[in-house]
Amino acid sequence: MDVRAAIATQAGKPLEVATVQLEGPKEGEVLIEVKATGICHTDDFTLSGADPEGLFPSILGHEGAGVVVDVGPGVRTLKKGDHVIPLYTPECRECPSCRSQKTNLCTAIRSTQGQGLMPDGTSRFSLDGKKLHHYMGCSTFANFTVLPEIAVARINPDAPFDKVCYIGCGVTTGVGAVVNTAKVEIGATAVVFGLGGIGLNVIQGLRLAGADMIVGVDINDDKKEWGERFGMTHFVNPTELDEDIVPYLVNLTKRGDDQTGGADYTFDCTGNTKVMRQALEASHRGWGESIVIGVAGAGEEISTRPFQLVTGRKWKGTAFGGARGRTDVPKIVDWYMEGKIDIDPMITHTLSLDEINKGFELMHSGESIRSVVVY
Amino acid sequence: MDVRAAIATQAGKPLEVATVQLEGPKEGEVLIEVKATGICHTDDFTLSGADPEGLFPSILGHEGAGVVVDVGPGVRTLKKGDHVIPLYTPECRECPSCRSQKTNLCTAIRSTQGQGLMPDGTSRFSLDGKKLHHYMGCSTFANFTVLPEIAVARINPDAPFDKVCYIGCGVTTGVGAVVNTAKVEIGATAVVFGLGGIGLNVIQGLRLAGADMIVGVDINDDKKEWGERFGMTHFVNPTELDEDIVPYLVNLTKRGDDQTGGADYTFDCTGNTKVMRQALEASHRGWGESIVIGVAGAGEEISTRPFQLVTGRKWKGTAFGGARGRTDVPKIVDWYMEGKIDIDPMITHTLSLDEINKGFELMHSGESIRSVVVY
Repeated sequence: MDVRAAIATQAGKPLEVATVQLEGPKEGEVLIEVKATGICHTDDFTLSGADPEGLFPSILGHEGAGVVVDVGPGVRTLKKGDHVIPLYTPECRECPSCRSQKTNLCTAIRSTQGQGLMPDGTSRFSLDGKKLHHYMGCSTFANFTVLPEIAVARINPDAPFDKVCYIGCGVTTGVGAVVNTAKVEIGATAVVFGLGGIGLNVIQGLRLAGADMIVGVDINDDKKEWGERFGMTHFVNPTELDEDIVPYLVNLTKRGDDQTGGADYTFDCTGNTKVMRQALEASHRGWGESIVIGVAGAGEEISTRPFQLVTGRKWKGTAFGGARGRTDVPKIVDWYMEGKIDIDPMITHTLSLDEINKGFELMHSGESIRSVVVY
Repeated sequence: MDVRAAIATQAGKPLEVATVQLEGPKEGEVLIEVKATGICHTDDFTLSGADPEGLFPSILGHEGAGVVVDVGPGVRTLKKGDHVIPLYTPECRECPSCRSQKTNLCTAIRSTQGQGLMPDGTSRFSLDGKKLHHYMGCSTFANFTVLPEIAVARINPDAPFDKVCYIGCGVTTGVGAVVNTAKVEIGATAVVFGLGGIGLNVIQGLRLAGADMIVGVDINDDKKEWGERFGMTHFVNPTELDEDIVPYLVNLTKRGDDQTGGADYTFDCTGNTKVMRQALEASHRGWGESIVIGVAGAGEEISTRPFQLVTGRKWKGTAFGGARGRTDVPKIVDWYMEGKIDIDPMITHTLSLDEINKGFELMHSGESIRSVVVY
């Protein structure tokens, strides 16, 4: 069938909107009509050419929501008409990783997904007979796409596509880092470095988890108002301090008779390896946990003195917020529908597919928290 | 009173055995007759001058066992005749750290202990009227010493001093890293880097915890037999491999249909920051935990790509095996008495106080696992 898509033809070039060909679903696959898709920094990372594993030509996009319009043979858990969110981290429930119940990093289709292909090793997208790569198993920058059943979460059919598409990546990454990876408890103290789309979702995850003190750190003062809207209790602009950010935060997080200081949980949402170190070192001696969420540039490394770990700090990371997609994404959609989390204010711009390159420009200029393409 | 002690007069010099003066216990303190003390790498680290916080002159030693011979006013939990192990990590049960139940790093007397003093800010040891520093709150290189009540664990009176003194540091550090910090579960896979006194205790901790696969890594082939004696199932000498140690270990730890590889738990017992990185990277994608036990040289740093954390590995550390001393040390003594753990074969040399410098020589030459001074 013919579908409308934005093609990443080569690194560093704007996307090209065109009509491409999509094959129908094979065994275990479903055809999804994409109704809306967010534009995420990861799409930009790949499009820029900085992603060493980026493939071209390809159809990017991994933060979508839509409706199942056809199912291939053997599909058991989805049917036509189901409202769904595509998952770049699948949940097969059968591989050693899924069975471990200790990670969300399902390995069922990891190798083909990394090659920009469906699990059978082929692509469903083509242009004039030439193969186009899938991207992160999703390719939501097309108004129809094909996914394996194990990479699709069925959600509440009342949920608005143009909002809950953001749960396909950013919301789940931020809220999930708090709920699944850090498992923040009521009354905790926390510091969030970087108040972009992910950081704001970490903040609202902390509010949901009942944290007492939610400190936001950003070099842009405009983010203060944004953070406060989602539950931030304190804002710090490190460029305006007379001292280093780590001792400042350690001091700020002292409370009661606990004069050791340092936050129970810290989160890096910047991708900056120096900030990742600050985040670890601003966590509490004895039990502080620091969670790396941001993606660093190729080849960059984090470092610290091992004494930081020996004295009880833990350094962790998270991908897709530790969420097992088919299990957890529908729950997060429900949280949104019940008003437990907000999404609407974060969707600062809504675009048509033809305007998709404008979404990347808004991201670069810092004007948007999230731009969403509505088909 | 006059007591016999080995004095660290200055960095890099052998200890000097002499008669020194010891004041009796003050409020909340107890006088202990030390019956035996191990000689640990940490004593050597300080004596060498490499420890930036080392103080001289001082009475080193922190791995002792003995008998309470006097108690100061207000002491409630100890009485004359109690068999005890001094604790360089106290357990006051009242400070924010103890109350958190998330760390063993009691802060009750941290500042004075770091200054080589008793909690009231003075020293009990002197020589010809000149102050001698306490060391790690213990100073077990003297046949009598004074400690605060909160830094003393009462143990089974049938336990032999010349063996269970080792529980005062090495045994608890190794076994505790497995039991308290990593919380290793039955059937786990593990890799232990460095098969000295700590590494062997990690190995027997893993055996006690029911690990399936216990891989020991050391550049000295003589350690193979040592590791096997305590439960090691596989030995690797990295200098004899044709490939890097990390991919070798990842491959070795593949099992069943889990072909991702990497150990569930890895432990660094070397203090070498390069090895600490290898330990992290040899842990399993998605859930592997790496525990830093070894103490690195001043100013040295660990580093890795943050991708290692984002894909689910956790980097932790441990001090005193995460043990809350008054609660956990008596249990470990009981485990020894019940035959759940071994200590006797690790005590390779027994010395008199006059021979204490020989104990350091045996450590340097690698001849000893542990030398113990018996008073």
